[in-house]
Amino acid sequence: MYELGVCYRNIQRADAAVADKMAALGSATVHEAMGRVGLLKPYMRPIYPGAQVSGTAVTVLLQPGDNWMMHVAAEQIQPGDIVVAAVTAECTDGYFGDLLATSFMARGARALIIDAGVRDVKTLQEMGFPVWSRAISSKGTIKATLGSVNIPVVCAGMLVTPGDVIVADDDGVVCVPRAMAAKTLEAAAARESFEGEKRAKLASGILGLDMYKMREPLQKAGLKYID
Amino acid sequence: MYELGVCYRNIQRADAAVADKMAALGSATVHEAMGRVGLLKPYMRPIYPGAQVSGTAVTVLLQPGDNWMMHVAAEQIQPGDIVVAAVTAECTDGYFGDLLATSFMARGARALIIDAGVRDVKTLQEMGFPVWSRAISSKGTIKATLGSVNIPVVCAGMLVTPGDVIVADDDGVVCVPRAMAAKTLEAAAARESFEGEKRAKLASGILGLDMYKMREPLQKAGLKYID
Amino acid sequence: MYELGVCYRNIQRADAAVADKMAALGSATVHEAMGRVGLLKPYMRPIYPGAQVSGTAVTVLLQPGDNWMMHVAAEQIQPGDIVVAAVTAECTDGYFGDLLATSFMARGARALIIDAGVRDVKTLQEMGFPVWSRAISSKGTIKATLGSVNIPVVCAGMLVTPGDVIVADDDGVVCVPRAMAAKTLEAAAARESFEGEKRAKLASGILGLDMYKMREPLQKAGLKYID
Amino acid sequence: MYELGVCYRNIQRADAAVADKMAALGSATVHEAMGRVGLLKPYMRPIYPGAQVSGTAVTVLLQPGDNWMMHVAAEQIQPGDIVVAAVTAECTDGYFGDLLATSFMARGARALIIDAGVRDVKTLQEMGFPVWSRAISSKGTIKATLGSVNIPVVCAGMLVTPGDVIVADDDGVVCVPRAMAAKTLEAAAARESFEGEKRAKLASGILGLDMYKMREPLQKAGLKYID
Amino acid sequence: MYELGVCYRNIQRADAAVADKMAALGSATVHEAMGRVGLLKPYMRPIYPGAQVSGTAVTVLLQPGDNWMMHVAAEQIQPGDIVVAAVTAECTDGYFGDLLATSFMARGARALIIDAGVRDVKTLQEMGFPVWSRAISSKGTIKATLGSVNIPVVCAGMLVTPGDVIVADDDGVVCVPRAMAAKTLEAAAARESFEGEKRAKLASGILGLDMYKMREPLQKAGLKYID
Amino acid sequence: MYELGVCYRNIQRADAAVADKMAALGSATVHEAMGRVGLLKPYMRPIYPGAQVSGTAVTVLLQPGDNWMMHVAAEQIQPGDIVVAAVTAECTDGYFGDLLATSFMARGARALIIDAGVRDVKTLQEMGFPVWSRAISSKGTIKATLGSVNIPVVCAGMLVTPGDVIVADDDGVVCVPRAMAAKTLEAAAARESFEGEKRAKLASGILGLDMYKMREPLQKAGLKYID
Repeated sequence: MYELGVCYRNIQRADAAVADKMAALGSATVHEAMGRVGLLKPYMRPIYPGAQVSGTAVTVLLQPGDNWMMHVAAEQIQPGDIVVAAVTAECTDGYFGDLLATSFMARGARALIIDAGVRDVKTLQEMGFPVWSRAISSKGTIKATLGSVNIPVVCAGMLVTPGDVIVADDDGVVCVPRAMAAKTLEAAAARESFEGEKRAKLASGILGLDMYKMREPLQKAGLKYID
Repeated sequence: MYELGVCYRNIQRADAAVADKMAALGSATVHEAMGRVGLLKPYMRPIYPGAQVSGTAVTVLLQPGDNWMMHVAAEQIQPGDIVVAAVTAECTDGYFGDLLATSFMARGARALIIDAGVRDVKTLQEMGFPVWSRAISSKGTIKATLGSVNIPVVCAGMLVTPGDVIVADDDGVVCVPRAMAAKTLEAAAARESFEGEKRAKLASGILGLDMYKMREPLQKAGLKYID
Repeated sequence: MYELGVCYRNIQRADAAVADKMAALGSATVHEAMGRVGLLKPYMRPIYPGAQVSGTAVTVLLQPGDNWMMHVAAEQIQPGDIVVAAVTAECTDGYFGDLLATSFMARGARALIIDAGVRDVKTLQEMGFPVWSRAISSKGTIKATLGSVNIPVVCAGMLVTPGDVIVADDDGVVCVPRAMAAKTLEAAAARESFEGEKRAKLASGILGLDMYKMREPLQKAGLKYID
Repeated sequence: MYELGVCYRNIQRADAAVADKMAALGSATVHEAMGRVGLLKPYMRPIYPGAQVSGTAVTVLLQPGDNWMMHVAAEQIQPGDIVVAAVTAECTDGYFGDLLATSFMARGARALIIDAGVRDVKTLQEMGFPVWSRAISSKGTIKATLGSVNIPVVCAGMLVTPGDVIVADDDGVVCVPRAMAAKTLEAAAARESFEGEKRAKLASGILGLDMYKMREPLQKAGLKYID
Repeated sequence: MYELGVCYRNIQRADAAVADKMAALGSATVHEAMGRVGLLKPYMRPIYPGAQVSGTAVTVLLQPGDNWMMHVAAEQIQPGDIVVAAVTAECTDGYFGDLLATSFMARGARALIIDAGVRDVKTLQEMGFPVWSRAISSKGTIKATLGSVNIPVVCAGMLVTPGDVIVADDDGVVCVPRAMAAKTLEAAAARESFEGEKRAKLASGILGLDMYKMREPLQKAGLKYID
Repeated sequence: MYELGVCYRNIQRADAAVADKMAALGSATVHEAMGRVGLLKPYMRPIYPGAQVSGTAVTVLLQPGDNWMMHVAAEQIQPGDIVVAAVTAECTDGYFGDLLATSFMARGARALIIDAGVRDVKTLQEMGFPVWSRAISSKGTIKATLGSVNIPVVCAGMLVTPGDVIVADDDGVVCVPRAMAAKTLEAAAARESFEGEKRAKLASGILGLDMYKMREPLQKAGLKYID
């Protein structure tokens, strides 16, 4: 439930060094490292492939068909931030285009995560400003009704608190609570460190059945092989 | 983002007298009184028509296809509670049926709000235990993986904190944060008090255009009548 | 594409005697009689079962989350009309409740067809005011932006021109253009007149295969029976 | 993948005594008894509440917008059968109405399960002929292209072979393969026999935590209670 | 509601010079210039990224699973046209592939907008024939039932009259009524002319809050900044 | 309905020479050659454009959120196989990523078809391992519950039997039953052989109306040209 008509100027951001390192690990590894929670719904898709970012969340709550608060949010952006936008009702309108992206980039934003639509997607790709959204739509918005900036929001089914770490790539978008960021980074990096060895074994033809010692538990669970 | 594997036993419930009075006002009036926020997504539908309830939220976070934590939640129910269940991924399985409903009723629960499926719906209606859900499904669930009880959850797009007031009827489900409950009740009752007079006027043929004095603002906005 | 900010006061309604008789024939028979066109998308569902109506269309184009024009439309209603409401973008908000229904009934409206949400559905059923909608939602709307009244609108995928005949029942909603109303009524009544005899034959055990003389065309099409 | 243009006249039906007894156990219990498989997707909903049936499957494969094969299927119906209809592409047209229902009832059919739309739903309820479908639609169909009757079909995501047992109620639709019918009935009845005792215990206030001896496994899994 | 079985040969096309210039402005700017109406639903997506076209509409109404009328439409194409295809019911079949594209290109068509599916999408990209569709599907269609050519159709929720201007790019598809084309082009070009200056200001770090003078209206609306 | 907990080791694969040649013909041509059946639902999309494969099906039935059986399936893969994965309930979790892909490639698999989600899609594209899926999701899975390997499964609405031929490209995924593979290849190749000539004619401006001799049947069907 949301407090409307407020903009919090001082938010506690997760440690920048921690937030910056998450991108390289990717959303899947970070999501695993948190115990398989924190993922925004998979309808959130990148508007172009290949972007991989992490940063600290500046949140914005929008009204349906109204992007007024995006301009309020722009002023709160600091270098390294990712803007996370929720709407009070389901909406696919194009809240964001090349002009707002220009402004966000000038402030140091790395990306936009929006549970609504965006437009000017060809230009956004040329500018190199990545967006994860639920829709792409030419439909513009008005500037008439207040929402809020930097309150906790539910974006694509996930609670995002200002200052949390956002990790986004072609696989999806994950939110890491600020208090768990350092621990999660460590756990994710540990997971990552084993991947190369595993990959080499699997590439050589060793089966996961053997590498993960699954044959016995499968047998115990009752798996029957039939010739 | 969720803390897994915990059950909070002591939650601060909204004032019972306040929570109890919300049902009569209905979800639409309460939603208006909060400034049009707090509504769970409209895919949440009652399994049978006519139920109208309010109460304090006991929350449960479930894993996909696993209703183990429903039993943990049952023990935390106090008379006047409404159980609010979220799942860590989209799922339509039937997490809840007549046996759990019997247990919930014995503990004093008034309803279940679940962002997943339920079953035994004919029996639930006979028992008079209302449920608002996203689906109805015969598919049962297992009891294998921990979730949590009485942590803040996102249910059908809305953040629900344990102890919040839930209002549910044929129009949908609204969550009123505990801290706003008394003020919201007052505002909702005030709205309600004017409804009878308005209805009488409209029934007599007076138009909303005149009753709400809309003709001038419509003209200012540029409305043109064409004969 | 829509003309915004206008309200046409003089529309040509289909003949009332024709419009009134369509209800008894039902949406399926009328739809067949037109050559299987004219049906609104099947996501349009009645808010309670059993209503069966026909009447002449008063149309309204709404903005997302804004029901201002419903009040403008109310003044244009004449006895025997059915209000058909479209929105300029997809929206499930509750645009209509018991107060507007009271006003519409006082003006003589028979029903509302709305490609959006409604609320107060329990009260609407008690009042006997039927609605076909895409959603039910407690979410209220504002009164800030102009749409139009009595322009041609696209409602649930179908073009509806003011004065067209609307037929709605548990099977769905059909729009019959004014110019085709008389001819369609005749064709639909003719279809209906054969139904009783067919039903009696089928009830006696005669197969459609024989009654409709399908065995030969099926054989020609290549159907093979395998014992 | 489907064989087109064939109608198998001799199918091996599951034992009638077994098929008949499934209805009373209900789709949820039968689904559990099979190990939680066999359920048609939960978008399959009854057109009116309260019906609870079981019977042997006569299958029909339809073409989009074409119900010709329903008439071929009618002739293959024997008392106690339930017709299961699939379409070669997604379609919500109204393939079935009161006339076909009259014919099916005259042949002894108990219900229709159709992965498409139906119409005349008010009349079908008055006739007491239950249907589970994905949609309700006034849109009629033509009779031009061959499908097949009594071949294995995929209906709402589930493979149904002619002669299988179908169980359908307000919770959904389950398919029990003929070869498993007797064993499944036995297992389902056994499950059912324990339900009364469990319900009495839970009604008396005993928790599932204790009745199912869950406290120890929950503790082992790491559940922490926090006061 | 549709007239079936007709092909209008003489349609009034919007001025070619006007229609041709719209592409460069893009769907978002044109949509804004019309007052935020005219957009086809955002589920209409390009089959490959980067195409940006405008032209005059030749319309075709198709039957489900039947592309017969596409061939009738081909003959009506003149250089500079864009074919706009609607279906009488929801359908995702692949109505259009490389052969029809070859024919359309030979006639001078610039693109296809279809509220259904297409196939051969890799070849279509190689040929440089852009399509905006609701689906991609290998499923072919038959040639058996009449629809119509060059009647007004509802495509993806928008009324398109033959001769209207269509603008389509990565952001979506907009329909500009013929009578509004010149005025819309002018308004869109005017909007466009200010964009460069705005972009430069925003890139220099000036905020939209200041550039658009939003601070005062936000304050009036009640926005509170909290430190 | 599914047999759970089994892995069939000896399956009869379609002839490799036949299976290998299908890729070049493409899913649309193969689908036509079978009489327009065999297509998986069009929500199955490639994770990157341009891949075009065919091979013999190794099937796997998965439990929701559980990819244990993928490892059992890996051992059953032979060079030239395509793994086809179904789930017992709707699920979008990321069952498959770069490690499993490494293992599958080492075994000779050509692709994965999965009615659920995958992750590591950027890496999968770099590796050149194509996947057709219903979703992309970072969400990982557990390894706890048995499904089956090499039983007939329903994947995206289509029955796939182990050893069937799978054809997949940008247009979709088709399943050709083993017994029909040779005949289908022949029919598809025949269709293909006429395409070049047709394309040349259409490119020269000859209309499909004339090339397919449609003018007379259209006239017979009642098409009216209006000037």
